[in-house]
Amino acid sequence: MKVVIAPDSFKGSLSAKDAAAAIEKGILLAAPETETVLIPIADGGEGTVDSLTGATHGTIHQVTVRGPLGEEVTAEYGVLGDNVTCVIEMASASGLYLIAPASRNPLLTTTYGTGQLIKHALDNGYREFILALGGSATNDGGSGMLQALGLQLLDEAGHAVGDGGQALARVRSIDSAQFDARIQASRFTIASDVTNPLIGPQGASAVFGPQKGATPAMVEELDQALHHWADLIETHTGIAIHHAPSAGAAGGLGGAFQAFFPSVVRPGIEIVMEKTNFHAHLQGANLVITGEGRTDAQTASGKAPMGIAQAAQRRGVPVFIMSGSVGDGIESLYAHGVTSIHSIMDGPMPLDDAMRRTEPLLVRKAEQVLRTYLAGVRGGGGVTGEWE
Amino acid sequence: MKVVIAPDSFKGSLSAKDAAAAIEKGILLAAPETETVLIPIADGGEGTVDSLTGATHGTIHQVTVRGPLGEEVTAEYGVLGDNVTCVIEMASASGLYLIAPASRNPLLTTTYGTGQLIKHALDNGYREFILALGGSATNDGGSGMLQALGLQLLDEAGHAVGDGGQALARVRSIDSAQFDARIQASRFTIASDVTNPLIGPQGASAVFGPQKGATPAMVEELDQALHHWADLIETHTGIAIHHAPSAGAAGGLGGAFQAFFPSVVRPGIEIVMEKTNFHAHLQGANLVITGEGRTDAQTASGKAPMGIAQAAQRRGVPVFIMSGSVGDGIESLYAHGVTSIHSIMDGPMPLDDAMRRTEPLLVRKAEQVLRTYLAGVRGGGGVTGEWE
Repeated sequence: MKVVIAPDSFKGSLSAKDAAAAIEKGILLAAPETETVLIPIADGGEGTVDSLTGATHGTIHQVTVRGPLGEEVTAEYGVLGDNVTCVIEMASASGLYLIAPASRNPLLTTTYGTGQLIKHALDNGYREFILALGGSATNDGGSGMLQALGLQLLDEAGHAVGDGGQALARVRSIDSAQFDARIQASRFTIASDVTNPLIGPQGASAVFGPQKGATPAMVEELDQALHHWADLIETHTGIAIHHAPSAGAAGGLGGAFQAFFPSVVRPGIEIVMEKTNFHAHLQGANLVITGEGRTDAQTASGKAPMGIAQAAQRRGVPVFIMSGSVGDGIESLYAHGVTSIHSIMDGPMPLDDAMRRTEPLLVRKAEQVLRTYLAGVRGGGGVTGEWE
Repeated sequence: MKVVIAPDSFKGSLSAKDAAAAIEKGILLAAPETETVLIPIADGGEGTVDSLTGATHGTIHQVTVRGPLGEEVTAEYGVLGDNVTCVIEMASASGLYLIAPASRNPLLTTTYGTGQLIKHALDNGYREFILALGGSATNDGGSGMLQALGLQLLDEAGHAVGDGGQALARVRSIDSAQFDARIQASRFTIASDVTNPLIGPQGASAVFGPQKGATPAMVEELDQALHHWADLIETHTGIAIHHAPSAGAAGGLGGAFQAFFPSVVRPGIEIVMEKTNFHAHLQGANLVITGEGRTDAQTASGKAPMGIAQAAQRRGVPVFIMSGSVGDGIESLYAHGVTSIHSIMDGPMPLDDAMRRTEPLLVRKAEQVLRTYLAGVRGGGGVTGEWE
């Protein structure tokens, strides 16, 4: 029997890699002869670098860059096993997780460090990029990244404007004379499930600003600044990103890629599945086990386990989801290839216990789920014997 | 597909009957064509009357009797569908659940009401009895039951002693002249998993006294009183129950049956399985689903789901246990026919939420478990197709 184990991370408690290892342990308890294939996955957010470098036996590069509030941070990017493709999580340099909740302020946060990561990779000769946009702390329209790569954003006096979404309002001209020419010789695949436009009620500021620390007044200011920024970009490049799908990803970083980079946007899970060779690993699999922190009706909206399930469904392979918690509306997942969904809890417990015990709970639940499945494989008794 | 659904109660939240209905609902969500057989079970404690009368389409009789502290209570006994066998839970008349925790006092509590239930059934012509001994509030050596059936327990002055374990110390003689003669013409099957002796460190008072409200001093007093009581019984009947297995069940009620009644002791689940025709229902079953409030290593010690699992194992039918919480040591259950064990929790939650939501949680979990099993039945994909 061959089982493909492809969980996302259990956010806050277990990385996708550790989750895969835990599930494998449970499966081998139930059926020691099982051939297991471990493919920790990600949806274009946290874990994307680990997933892709892990699956391809790639490498990780650490770089000191400017963090979202200008402080020095050690960020990283991955190079896949092909030694051609770089994978960058913008959150590594410009992520919300780098800032204590009380200090979050999207008026000030910058994507500058993300630009530095790209520059470092360009300097190392790489021209093929996967950019994962999840988890940003920023609302700067990608201006920081562009500045790190040489774009000049000048105010009325012809001076460079500072960092952050607020500063965009002061930009009067864009000078791309020193913009890194290697960008045009590169290819950027943007991993993002966000389809929001840059501005307006469904835009970056209104929808994602609050979780980055924006008050209603700040949302208003940021949305106007991005509007101004998009006008300038349109003047400069001829490309209108105001209402472009996915332009609102990562506080407008998505829009910056659309305007200034040779880029395509794809759902994160698709890229991850492609680069991890997921479809090839599905060959001959009897079963796929995936997992995530929480499964509910939202899971159907492009979350990683859904991509896994849809691919498995096309090959008729059943998919079990293991989750910390299972919410309402899971019936909608069946049509997308999900066979069954299992909370890993083994009894009533508070959330912090569940977070602390995620690994052993996952081992145990995987064992029980596999034992249940195997009972079916073995024909469920098929009782036809004589009456005792 | 035929599924036998045979859960115990989820104590404090769901009766065995309601648990069976919830499991059935989940199964039919997963596989609407399933043939289901519902057999709510019990282990000789709470739910035994409901299980046996429900399964045999019997009847319930209500009788006003003396409760464990002398107050009037409405107790009940069942008559099985054969209209021959009575089933009595001693706890219905003399159970701990009838007394508020602060009022529990095994020096005073009496089994008198249990005797009245038996007398009522004898008056109605019944001679075949199943006595379930679980859940007693008493430590009176069965003296109350015997008194209700005409046995005279006399003190030094020749007066009847009062109720309770404490009063046993004052008994100087037993007069069985008026003891109900119909007892000897009857058969009593005692459902008990308790194998403790009447007295000593493993006896009724020491082991079960504290949970009935006994302080250490009361345990000492009660143990000495039961010792004296066993001496008197030996003098009167020639039967020594001091160290007899199961004599310590229900505060010594087990010993009273052994000394004064034509009786045999059997594990509760065996009786329940026999009377519910469980073995016949197993014929042709693909699957058995049982359940209980908590499953752990203790489950192997004669709890109801274990009897179910062992019977199913002999026919090669897989058994899934659904539980509120799953503790340690469950691996020991596999050798006894348990296939897999599933907590019904769908995420972290406090105990009171779990208790309140037991029914919907059970529906949902049964559905997921059956979907998982069916994926195995369907061959798990058996992928052999061409590479896309």
